Amino acid sequence: MPITLKELADFCDAQIEGGNPSILIDTAADITSAQTGQVTQLTNSKYTRYLKESKASACFIAHDFAVDTIPDDIALLRCTDPEMAFINAVGLLHPAKTYGQHIAPQAVLGANVSVDESVYIGAFAVIGDNVSIGEGSVVLAGAYIGNNVKIGKRCRIYPYAVVYDNVIMGDNVIIHSGAIIGADGFGYKFRNHVHVKVPQVGNVVIADNVEIGANTCIDRGALGSTTIGAGSKIDNLVQVGHNNQVGKNVIMCGLTGVSGSCTIGDYAILAGSSGIADHVNIGQGAVVMARSGVAGDIAAGTQVFGSPAKDKRTAYKEQVAISKLPELLKTVKQLEEKIQALEKQGKDEN
Amino acid sequence: MPITLKELADFCDAQIEGGNPSILIDTAADITSAQTGQVTQLTNSKYTRYLKESKASACFIAHDFAVDTIPDDIALLRCTDPEMAFINAVGLLHPAKTYGQHIAPQAVLGANVSVDESVYIGAFAVIGDNVSIGEGSVVLAGAYIGNNVKIGKRCRIYPYAVVYDNVIMGDNVIIHSGAIIGADGFGYKFRNHVHVKVPQVGNVVIADNVEIGANTCIDRGALGSTTIGAGSKIDNLVQVGHNNQVGKNVIMCGLTGVSGSCTIGDYAILAGSSGIADHVNIGQGAVVMARSGVAGDIAAGTQVFGSPAKDKRTAYKEQVAISKLPELLKTVKQLEEKIQALEKQGKDEN
Amino acid sequence: MPITLKELADFCDAQIEGGNPSILIDTAADITSAQTGQVTQLTNSKYTRYLKESKASACFIAHDFAVDTIPDDIALLRCTDPEMAFINAVGLLHPAKTYGQHIAPQAVLGANVSVDESVYIGAFAVIGDNVSIGEGSVVLAGAYIGNNVKIGKRCRIYPYAVVYDNVIMGDNVIIHSGAIIGADGFGYKFRNHVHVKVPQVGNVVIADNVEIGANTCIDRGALGSTTIGAGSKIDNLVQVGHNNQVGKNVIMCGLTGVSGSCTIGDYAILAGSSGIADHVNIGQGAVVMARSGVAGDIAAGTQVFGSPAKDKRTAYKEQVAISKLPELLKTVKQLEEKIQALEKQGKDEN
Repeated sequence: MPITLKELADFCDAQIEGGNPSILIDTAADITSAQTGQVTQLTNSKYTRYLKESKASACFIAHDFAVDTIPDDIALLRCTDPEMAFINAVGLLHPAKTYGQHIAPQAVLGANVSVDESVYIGAFAVIGDNVSIGEGSVVLAGAYIGNNVKIGKRCRIYPYAVVYDNVIMGDNVIIHSGAIIGADGFGYKFRNHVHVKVPQVGNVVIADNVEIGANTCIDRGALGSTTIGAGSKIDNLVQVGHNNQVGKNVIMCGLTGVSGSCTIGDYAILAGSSGIADHVNIGQGAVVMARSGVAGDIAAGTQVFGSPAKDKRTAYKEQVAISKLPELLKTVKQLEEKIQALEKQGKDEN
Repeated sequence: MPITLKELADFCDAQIEGGNPSILIDTAADITSAQTGQVTQLTNSKYTRYLKESKASACFIAHDFAVDTIPDDIALLRCTDPEMAFINAVGLLHPAKTYGQHIAPQAVLGANVSVDESVYIGAFAVIGDNVSIGEGSVVLAGAYIGNNVKIGKRCRIYPYAVVYDNVIMGDNVIIHSGAIIGADGFGYKFRNHVHVKVPQVGNVVIADNVEIGANTCIDRGALGSTTIGAGSKIDNLVQVGHNNQVGKNVIMCGLTGVSGSCTIGDYAILAGSSGIADHVNIGQGAVVMARSGVAGDIAAGTQVFGSPAKDKRTAYKEQVAISKLPELLKTVKQLEEKIQALEKQGKDEN
Repeated sequence: MPITLKELADFCDAQIEGGNPSILIDTAADITSAQTGQVTQLTNSKYTRYLKESKASACFIAHDFAVDTIPDDIALLRCTDPEMAFINAVGLLHPAKTYGQHIAPQAVLGANVSVDESVYIGAFAVIGDNVSIGEGSVVLAGAYIGNNVKIGKRCRIYPYAVVYDNVIMGDNVIIHSGAIIGADGFGYKFRNHVHVKVPQVGNVVIADNVEIGANTCIDRGALGSTTIGAGSKIDNLVQVGHNNQVGKNVIMCGLTGVSGSCTIGDYAILAGSSGIADHVNIGQGAVVMARSGVAGDIAAGTQVFGSPAKDKRTAYKEQVAISKLPELLKTVKQLEEKIQALEKQGKDEN
């Protein structure tokens, strides 16, 4: 759905600098590849050189971002926040797929299901007993929703996501394909030479605006709830064990694991492939860097790296020191010899 | 289903100390959150302070576990093994969902399927040819069972678990949602500049009482079987490659990977995000600590840490040493200067 | 389907040495377990001892591979490339399951679907609108194919694989169960204390002869495509983030994660549980060893190890040095004392 440059600028609250306001823009693209009819963005001076050779028709750019000569055909779209303006433009030019009211004849609905009349339920979806689904929510093909699940408004459950019994989720929650919400936590007691299963009878509670990536697992509480706070975003293939209490606006990147009974503070960031041992508290806004393993509490606002994880500055110092270690071994060997010589010399003199 | 304190105590073989034997208990809860009508447990003196402020109605506790003053309303349930007593209480108060005999009309069953009359098969489950399913087993909605699969008694296959052809499993096996049992192993030969696929024609054999977590993958043998021994418990998002021989009562925690053709001894523990290279033997009862990477054989009973993994004590000593390394570099620098001074002094004297 | 030794030898272009050309071979097996009627291979002298005790009926072996006395009943199948000969033999004796033309009545097909007449579509498969599926391709039970997806010839999509909208794949592509192709990339901008979702409107393009393992996730591009080059093989539980450009014949082992916007050169190998930060270039033929974490570009042909990853030789030197570090600390302590003594001695003398 192409729109004029003028319409785009108005929609995104930007001022046109150069170019022709009536040309048509049909799609958005990265600055390295944008072509005629496309809008792009420039927010990092590292990429300024791409603009100079670009065939894009328009480029969002901050009011004070300096550029020299640029092709005549590019209109700059000056604005205060080009990243957000570009997000809005992408949303406008590439509208998300929408789903109207529909309950597929191949879906199976349990007893006492309360589904808002606007809800979409795809083929082969299975909805258990006593489930409620709020206004505008979409349950795509083959998604499995267990008994007593509450799904808020405008949620989207992708194909083959599995939501076990008793899970509660707020509004605007997105659950990607293959995510498993509410499977049993991993709890056993070792007795008489075997691992006895500890019943896992709690649930998972997901607040508003949470997004959960493909094939991510969030286990139910053993007793009580595993909770994910509002606005938290969880990437693909993440393991969140039982009874973790994840705060608001937390970021967890791919292949990260959080054992169990941890508290993850608001705004914390767990970078890719990081891991948290059980019963650990991660303070508000703390950052666990990629591939780090955390076994003890992390204070708010700190950044840690390594396995075992340490304060980032300490870890970096140690990394630098390790790179000097092979040389240090040689140096110390030489010092030993020199000292031996000095000692011998001392003895010879006496 | 609330029961009296007396009934609960009798069921769990505990002696009531204080409280009223006729009060009703309806659910179980953690000691940090238990309320009136709930039973909890206290097994760790770190949590004794919670008991003092608790509103729980009853608490399992060992015969010799010392507590001072506790609220009048809490009955202590003295017993020899409070953890097991509590597990039993949870099982009684929060009974697991049961599934009666049922074959959903939307399920698809292949030819020559032998299903015990007590079996439950959910909607959209797909059962291949020549499959047998034993007494009391449950195949939930959308689970996929390939050809020639044998499923023992009292197994539970959760939604969208996938069991490829020729997999054999014993009794009481639990396979959680999204687990993929028997996909092709990752085997190629590099010829003429391309990776030629090695046919993966073996299978997976799972013994009794195994539990396999959500989204875990257990690859079939290239030839022969990948085997999981009785009583082993595998967490979510674990990768078990082709032809691994996993012993009995092994524990594998989330995000762990075992490459291929390894032997994992009975009672071994592979902690979270650990990894084992191929053709490695992990001895009986060995512990691979979290995030460790094992490239060579590990003797029975040893604990290893790090990547590359070393004996835990060695690894810890090295970790301590690394923390002293930045200081050591400075010290050696000073020693160099002192020795230079001593050498100069020696020369000046001669 | 047993065949004679002679037929097998002819099929695999091997010369029979010993044994009876008319005996029947029915299956293939590993040299450690092969029995009468089975063919095996010997390519590694470490396993020669197994041949001496083997009950196998035949064994592929290189023309110049020296063996002493072997059991009379074993025929050696001398050939130039015993590994490839064995692969061919396995393919012959254990033929892959084939699927004839079939569209299950329980499958759901969207509008404007163009499916070659030879295609197999299993029960509960969901095929979106404007999908094309080429000759000989197989979409197994419950696979989900979104709108505007193109599937080439002879592809195989296993149960519950999910292919989101607009994904394009070439010929001979294999996608295992639970793999999620084209879910949203993990992109947000932090504004007004919340993470604002960046629309993910690109797609995934998979070239010919790619194999994608079980429960692996390949995210769509934010804008533009995430691409997987011809002949690349991706193991289970791998995360490939948005806008990565993966070259040809790349190998990615289990539990590896590639963040986003990376370039992975042809023939690169990412070993198990390795990780690549975003915007990183991995050169052609580079090897990232197991559990390594790469934060910066890697030159073609180099091997790196560790987290942060370094050139393999540097990393190994450092590992050796670390193992000497606890001893070094003691040595330096002694040197300090000796120097103190020398200094004292020097002063005493003056």
